[in-house]
Amino acid sequence: MKATAGNLAQVKKGCFKTCELGELRKDYFLNRWAIIATERRKRPTDLRVKEKEEIIEGACPFCPGNEHMTPPATLLYLPSGKGIIKAKDGEGERPSNWLVRCFPNLYPALRPEGEHYGYHEVIVESPLHDEQPAVARDEQIKLVVQAYVDRTKAFIEDERIRYVCVFRNYGKRAGASLSHPHSQVIALPFEPPLIEAERKGMIGSECKMCRVIEKELEEGERIVLESENFVVFCPWAAIHPFEFWIVPKKHERSLLEAKNLDEFALLLKRTLKALKDLLNDPPYMYGFHVAARGVDFHWHLEVYPKLTEQAGFERNTGVFINIIAPEEAAKALSDYV
Amino acid sequence: MKATAGNLAQVKKGCFKTCELGELRKDYFLNRWAIIATERRKRPTDLRVKEKEEIIEGACPFCPGNEHMTPPATLLYLPSGKGIIKAKDGEGERPSNWLVRCFPNLYPALRPEGEHYGYHEVIVESPLHDEQPAVARDEQIKLVVQAYVDRTKAFIEDERIRYVCVFRNYGKRAGASLSHPHSQVIALPFEPPLIEAERKGMIGSECKMCRVIEKELEEGERIVLESENFVVFCPWAAIHPFEFWIVPKKHERSLLEAKNLDEFALLLKRTLKALKDLLNDPPYMYGFHVAARGVDFHWHLEVYPKLTEQAGFERNTGVFINIIAPEEAAKALSDYV
Repeated sequence: MKATAGNLAQVKKGCFKTCELGELRKDYFLNRWAIIATERRKRPTDLRVKEKEEIIEGACPFCPGNEHMTPPATLLYLPSGKGIIKAKDGEGERPSNWLVRCFPNLYPALRPEGEHYGYHEVIVESPLHDEQPAVARDEQIKLVVQAYVDRTKAFIEDERIRYVCVFRNYGKRAGASLSHPHSQVIALPFEPPLIEAERKGMIGSECKMCRVIEKELEEGERIVLESENFVVFCPWAAIHPFEFWIVPKKHERSLLEAKNLDEFALLLKRTLKALKDLLNDPPYMYGFHVAARGVDFHWHLEVYPKLTEQAGFERNTGVFINIIAPEEAAKALSDYV
Repeated sequence: MKATAGNLAQVKKGCFKTCELGELRKDYFLNRWAIIATERRKRPTDLRVKEKEEIIEGACPFCPGNEHMTPPATLLYLPSGKGIIKAKDGEGERPSNWLVRCFPNLYPALRPEGEHYGYHEVIVESPLHDEQPAVARDEQIKLVVQAYVDRTKAFIEDERIRYVCVFRNYGKRAGASLSHPHSQVIALPFEPPLIEAERKGMIGSECKMCRVIEKELEEGERIVLESENFVVFCPWAAIHPFEFWIVPKKHERSLLEAKNLDEFALLLKRTLKALKDLLNDPPYMYGFHVAARGVDFHWHLEVYPKLTEQAGFERNTGVFINIIAPEEAAKALSDYV
């Protein structure tokens, strides 16, 4: 078998024709395989969402005025004449004029006390019930990214914490239980296995992600968008249809070292808007991949549209069938950015 | 942090009380973590399926009489006065009196020709449109398991093939696109990463799975069922609610070495029936874990009910939140077997 590994030298031009026969691709960093099998559907837009699955809900616990329905805020961004003030909820005081509001998850996966400690918080991204990132005001999405940094900083100050995972689930199919725009943060006392494996594949005598960016820009066919300081591309061995990554061009380890986060925030909005327009507002998940405490990494964001199921085959082998070639995905998305 | 690893000596009795605070557990064999966070729901039966999602379909391509809608059969079990006859579809001949019918997937992930070869077949498990394993006739479910063996044998005869994955998706949420009872087989030219990692964790100077079985039987609290030659249990670090494994007590590498497969078939039926009754016919996936060509392994079946989403956190970390403690799952399932 001549399966092509993450070795970009092997990338063939125009491969999305040949991969109709089922092409095996290895991830840049992980021992993980994608089978690109585009024959399993007709056109990329066959995956457009037909029926939206609504989240059924009563009073929204994340809307302003309903702060009593959630725990006291650990961080609030409040408007003031001089810009944003950062605050917390006080004893019995829960202001409702916040712009961003962070608080512990009512049903945490982990807790800061006890043997298996960690943190699990919610970041409500806007006072407006429908201000999803794809349609957010520029100033608002910048605040959301700022909140990601602030909460990462807060948790990593706890010396027991080794990794902070910031992630977002959008749409019921992607695991969201409430529709009001929100992200989550889970802080862990260890480097999670997937990040550890990614780091080990990425960081050697040089950073392989730095090299991937260079090569992807050179190849061009998986690029969605390039800005001054970031590259957006569909990875060679994407395991989700229309998966794309947003990666800083310069080597930065984590959100805490990241420069140009305003530029990142606007890119995030722009690419999620493209995804929304291309596929009729599909569910998606995203997560930041960053350095664990004390080790090197090249941080980036991975966006996973939820259009198909990873079912019995994927879950029992670690091999993933992707019915959209990354080259096709990049082309389709780049038409919409 | 004192996260408890797959070291069974550390298993505490009655742990499903303490794990309400979020307990970290490591898999027996893999570098994979489960967060057991039962506080995120009330009772195990809160996960009972409320609304079933139906697969919308016209004429069923898998029903007898519609054989022309699928490729020619590579294996047929036909009834005869003297038992079962094994046959294939001939030129233009497609008998419709089959009991089990196997044929290439119309939309294969991999194909036997070309650079990235492999096989992808469908096993139609019954001529009856509703004869799912949980309600199958005993003789029929035995034939299905026999077909798993026969197709495994056929593919492994191709020397390029290193691994044969037999799996099943039941219900739309679990990735099934047709409701007629069927399994799938994908034969790969390499040992898949998850199986490779599992093998490396399992096979050392002795087989760790043999040890796990002993210890789980000793502990008892995760056992669903024990038969003469098999143990059914919910694994210590299950990553799906109500996940269970069916494992032969004696060390056998794969389905090709397996004895007692009739006993296995009846156990499969019995446990899937328990799952159906307990949770109102939930979607599920299952997959066999077996030896790749030329290496050792302890084969078993893993069954994953599909009751929650593995979303942004899980997919970006390789850490899995499970809202049902395996001890609770085992107890609930054992009440129904």
